[in-house]
This record gives sequence, C-alpha cells and structure tokens, in this order.
Amino acid sequence: MINAQYKQMLQGKSIIRELSEYATARGKEIGYENVFDYSLGNPSVPCTRDFTDTMIELLQTNEPVALHGYSPSLGIESVRQSVADSLNRRFGMNYAGKHIFMTTGAAGAVAHAIRCVTQPGDEVLTFAPFFPEYMPYVNQTGAVLKVVPANTENFQINFEAFEQMVTDKVAAVLVNTPNNPSGVVYSSETLTRLADLLRQKQTEYGHDIFLVSDEPYREIVFAGVDAPFVAKFYDNTLTCYSFSKSLSLPGERIGYVAVNPKATDADIIAVICGQISRGIGHNCPPSIIQLAVSKVIDETSDLSVYETNMNLIYDKLIALGFTVVRPGGTFYIFPKALEKDANAFCRKAQQYDLILVPADNFGCPGYFRMAYCIDTEKVKRSLPVLERFVREQYGVQ
Amino acid sequence: MINAQYKQMLQGKSIIRELSEYATARGKEIGYENVFDYSLGNPSVPCTRDFTDTMIELLQTNEPVALHGYSPSLGIESVRQSVADSLNRRFGMNYAGKHIFMTTGAAGAVAHAIRCVTQPGDEVLTFAPFFPEYMPYVNQTGAVLKVVPANTENFQINFEAFEQMVTDKVAAVLVNTPNNPSGVVYSSETLTRLADLLRQKQTEYGHDIFLVSDEPYREIVFAGVDAPFVAKFYDNTLTCYSFSKSLSLPGERIGYVAVNPKATDADIIAVICGQISRGIGHNCPPSIIQLAVSKVIDETSDLSVYETNMNLIYDKLIALGFTVVRPGGTFYIFPKALEKDANAFCRKAQQYDLILVPADNFGCPGYFRMAYCIDTEKVKRSLPVLERFVREQYGVQ
Repeated sequence: MINAQYKQMLQGKSIIRELSEYATARGKEIGYENVFDYSLGNPSVPCTRDFTDTMIELLQTNEPVALHGYSPSLGIESVRQSVADSLNRRFGMNYAGKHIFMTTGAAGAVAHAIRCVTQPGDEVLTFAPFFPEYMPYVNQTGAVLKVVPANTENFQINFEAFEQMVTDKVAAVLVNTPNNPSGVVYSSETLTRLADLLRQKQTEYGHDIFLVSDEPYREIVFAGVDAPFVAKFYDNTLTCYSFSKSLSLPGERIGYVAVNPKATDADIIAVICGQISRGIGHNCPPSIIQLAVSKVIDETSDLSVYETNMNLIYDKLIALGFTVVRPGGTFYIFPKALEKDANAFCRKAQQYDLILVPADNFGCPGYFRMAYCIDTEKVKRSLPVLERFVREQYGVQ
Repeated sequence: MINAQYKQMLQGKSIIRELSEYATARGKEIGYENVFDYSLGNPSVPCTRDFTDTMIELLQTNEPVALHGYSPSLGIESVRQSVADSLNRRFGMNYAGKHIFMTTGAAGAVAHAIRCVTQPGDEVLTFAPFFPEYMPYVNQTGAVLKVVPANTENFQINFEAFEQMVTDKVAAVLVNTPNNPSGVVYSSETLTRLADLLRQKQTEYGHDIFLVSDEPYREIVFAGVDAPFVAKFYDNTLTCYSFSKSLSLPGERIGYVAVNPKATDADIIAVICGQISRGIGHNCPPSIIQLAVSKVIDETSDLSVYETNMNLIYDKLIALGFTVVRPGGTFYIFPKALEKDANAFCRKAQQYDLILVPADNFGCPGYFRMAYCIDTEKVKRSLPVLERFVREQYGVQ
C-alpha cells in the first residue's frame, strides 16, 4: 500500500508553487512579459563564464571513466579540501577537508544536518518568518519543528519568545541569514546574544544544542551591510551552503555541510551524514559538478541586479506607505499587507497580474513576500501597476 | 546529540569498501598494475562520445539560466517523456511521462520506491545473494528487509523458501536481475512463477504486494541470454534504473523509477516519490545530466569487454574445478569458495594480490564475488596467479 504519511503530504500543496503555476498559465494567455511574477526564488542571472568554460574543459580533457566515476560518498577529497580552504581564507576559520560533507544543495545539507544531530521526538526551533520547506526537512527526520514568533520590528530574533521555547527538549536551532523571506541579515549583536543564550542553555541542560545555519544567500549582501559568519560565534555550528544562488546553479544540486572543527564530535559528523545519505540511497552530488564548482570556488555570478531591484521596490513601497524592513541581502522583500488577511491582499493584486506570495505558511500572517530575481526592466514596469493596485484597492494617496 | 541510530551504522563498515581501500594502498606499494583488484563494481569503459558531445553542446548553446535552472521535483518533463518513450519502444510498454520519477541513480530509485509502497514495520523480501546496500535502503525507511535463502543450483529463485516467507506482513518484494553478485538473469519461467505467486498472495491477503525491480545491469546481457522486462510479468511493478553502468556515469547520479501504468495508484506514485524526496531535501538529479542523458537515451557504452572478461574467468574457474554458475550478464561472477569459510579463502587469495570479496553479507556464506570491470589485459595476467593460488593453497591439479 502507498505510504500513508507521504500520501497525506499531497494535501499540503505549496502556495509558492501554486502561484508560480498560475503565473505561467496566465503568461500563456496575456504574454509572460505582462505578468509581474514575484513568486519564485529562481536566480535570474547566468552562472559565470568561468564555470561554463571549466565544465567544457573537464569534458574535453579528462578521461571519461575517471571524470564520471563514483565520488566517495562524503564528496571528492580534493573538492572537500577546496571548500575548507575557501572558508578558512574568507572567514578566518580552521576547517579541514574532513569537516566538509558535499550535498545536493542547501536543502540536502539542512535535511542531513538536522537528522545528524537529533533523535526522533527532539525539538528543533526556527524563527519566523521561515522557509516553509523547513517543515518537511525537519519533521521527516522524526524531530519536531517549532517556530519562534517573529520580531516584526526588524526581523532580527524575538529573544523573549525564544528564551521561553528553548527547553530541555531542544536539540537544534535552525537559522537562515540572509533570510528568506525577510531579506534581513542577522547582526553581530543578534548572533552574539543567540550564541550566549545557547551556551547558557547547553550548560543548564547538560547536552549539546546544535546551531544549523542555512546560508544559501550568503553571497547576496547589499552595500553597507555587515554579514557576519555564523560559525564564528558558536562552536556547535553546522553551516549549510548551496551554490544555487551564488553561482546561479539551482538545477545542478550542489552544496555542503561545513562542521565547525570546535563542535562536539566534529570529526565524525560528516561521516554520519554519509551514513544518513546511504540510508536514503542518495549518495553524493554529481562528480562533474563537484569538480567544476571547486575550480571556481571563490567566484560568484554578477549579483548586483538584486540590489538594484531591491532599491527600486523598497523605495516604491515606502512611498506607497507600506510597513517594510529594508533587506540587507537575498532577493526577497517582506512587506506588511495593507489589510489583515494577506491572502485576500494577494488575491486582489493578482487581478493586476502582480503575483505576490502571502506569508501565512512562512509563520508570519499578514505579510507577503516578493522574490525580485527578475529583470530590472520588468521591475520598473511593475511599479506603476503596484501603485495603481494600491490606490484603487486601498485608496492610498 | 549525534543521532544514535546512524552512529551505530558506523560499526558496519562495508567489506567491499575495505577491500577496495586495501587494494589501493597495496597498489601504492607494489604498483596498482600488480594488484588484481576484483573488489569494486565501477565501470571500466568510457561513456559514449555522443554523451560527452551532448554535454558540451548543451553548455555551448544553451542559455545558462535555463540550462542550470531548477528541475521540477519529479524531473524535467521532456526527460520523463523521453524515458517513457524509450521504454515503450524497446519493451512494448505503455508508460506516460507521469509514470517516470527521475532519481539519483538506482540507489535513489530503490530507496524511494520502497519508502513509497511500505508503512513502517512492513516486511520487504529480497533473494540471496543480494546487494548488501539493500539493508540500509530498506531498513532506514522503517520497513524490515528479510532475505529469502539462495537457490545455489542456478541462482534463480528458491520458491520453496519464498512461499513460506510471503506472509501477510509483506508489502514489497525486491528483485535484481541481471543480478549483483551472481551475474544471473532471471528467466521468463522464473518471472512467470514469481508473478503468479504474488498475484495469488495479493488475492489471499487482500492487499497489494509491490515488486520493486532494481535493474542497473539491464543493458549488460551476454550472447544468447534472454533478459525479459520484469514489469511485463506483473502489474504492480516499480522498475528502478540507473545510467551508471549502461553509460558508465556512476558519479553523475542519474536514474529513474518507472511505475507500471497498470499498478495500483499508478498515477500518484511518482508524485509521492516527489514528496519523499522533498522530505529528505534531495529534490532531483542535476538538470544538465537529465538533459544530456535524455538525448542519448537508447545508447550504451561499448559493454562487450565485460563478456570477454566473463568468458576468460569462467573458463579458468571451471578448469580449476570451481563450482560456479555461468553469468548471463552484469560484470560479476559468484563462485563457491574452495573452503567452507569464504573469508579465510579470500584472505589467502590476498597474499597473491588477488582481491576477492567474500559473500557473507550478500546472504550467501561460502561464496565470493569477482567484479570483472577491469581491463582484459589485467584479467589475462590474473589467471595464472589465480591458478597458482589454487594449486598452492588447495592442491587442485
């Protein structure tokens, strides 16, 4: 018989995916250029020329049996070393190759990291607003995701609520900075306070509390914003990364878990992730993509378009009277809707072919997300439409 | 805390991997050309020139944002359709794109298929000798793998033992033909009898019993051998495939589950596999590899070397008095050791730099596996060494 638990999951279709499918269908009716689709977080800039050239060179010059051969299940050794070297160079860390576990993107990284440091029934805390896919990533391990209410003033951490929720049952805390959907980057002050509190609770409860830091947007940080490296603040940190956004390779499924060398059991965590991977038959990311990424490890695509778009949208939202926190990075912005029910607000916007995502299942009802990984030209064309929508529906001057 | 269950798995290191590591280390001492390494099932022939050219063409001519963009979580639609078309063309089946779920190799396919059609606590049966990684693939789903003892006469199915073990608790049966490690291909007679028995038991118990058919060696079949398509015999069949062996791409992690259109819930099984994948953060195989494989979907590498090697080794084993079933495909052969304890036998062989794998954890104690995916030249050089080993240690004339 079909597994009942997974059959049940079919009920909970992703609102993002639904809206994205609507946008595509609507595009077929009126031309996709006329649909202002802010639904999906899909990079809009190409990978670097170097990445493409590296792939072609690998294919042209390497012996195919070696090039396409099995990767060791934790990742190709030279690739793991190059990830460690890059992190050490850039963030003054002290990773060795053995602390790196290569994964199929940040999604794979988070799912493995959480499974590694929890037992079934343990609690994992995350902070609203949060990426809805954390629900299956965490809950399918047998652990239970609990969401700390948002600090809607600035989308840093709501420490009052957090302190109450960090009970003895909590095995891990999952953070995402720069944040999807708020665009906010956690400050040094926030991370210091978080780390201090976690250390205090570890001592109080007599067990580890791991910090799983999901960082696919690490390289998309805007001018003047300080984006501290989370693992520097707290020893028991597992850093989850993806090249999907930095190199615009979301389809190629490549990322890693980096285990802080000072973490408890630091030397076996990657090995245990390998066992987890073995148990789901997944093994490791594709060899050729591992090799290619390692050769352009410090590069990023030209990510400047996201900041350009953010400034245009932020200024217009402010001018229209929205309550909104200025993003420090990512390609998301997270304004408060102009009526209490963000679903109703987004349905009205849809009549103007503005595709906005209501944030109920991001743990922040009343807000909506705009993913501005689209052409600047289209952003510019969307702003008068946004203005017309707001004036007609909400009478804002 | 580190997950206790996975920490426990660290104890059970793979004998294949241990021997392979030994062979590599020994190669550094005496030159790898002098180590007759029959341990690992890693293809020894290159992928096709067409595959490489297709990859380069995709990179040179496609717009990178589209090429490297997210694949839908069940696989790229055109790729799923091309898999369905190929199976229909070759095997007279009736798959639609919706019946295909793209996976990271056959390992990912088997792990997803089993999870899809079992509930925790259900039993899954497989037949000795079997690929040892089935243990984690099945047991990590919460189902329980039970092994039907081997029919050592010809390594077809031991139906007497099987009938006793197909109780009401059995939700799925996992077969692997052509078989790793025996090299044997299940005959039409075997598959007919298996299907008849499963249908009878489905009726008797009033619930589905799915047949999960693991077929990574489907394209490696030797002259004169009939290799029937398993799904033709039984409606509730999930076919698990990998391009690792047929196209020599084991590192690129690409395969699929094909759901027999006549299976119960055929139209939602791929969708449920997508939910399973979502729950482990894995999503789908790399976009560029999906696209490239779909363009060479009916090609294989030149696989003839495996048959050449098999004939050389089989003839020598027979000449030396081994009990051995002639393989019908794969790149494995599975002789009976010349003493009761195959571990002792393989340790003695190791003194001659012959790396053979004892089959205790393939569910067939007293046998050993040779993976002859190596150069024919090396196979030829190994045969006198095999002969010397046998004569010196076992006094065979």
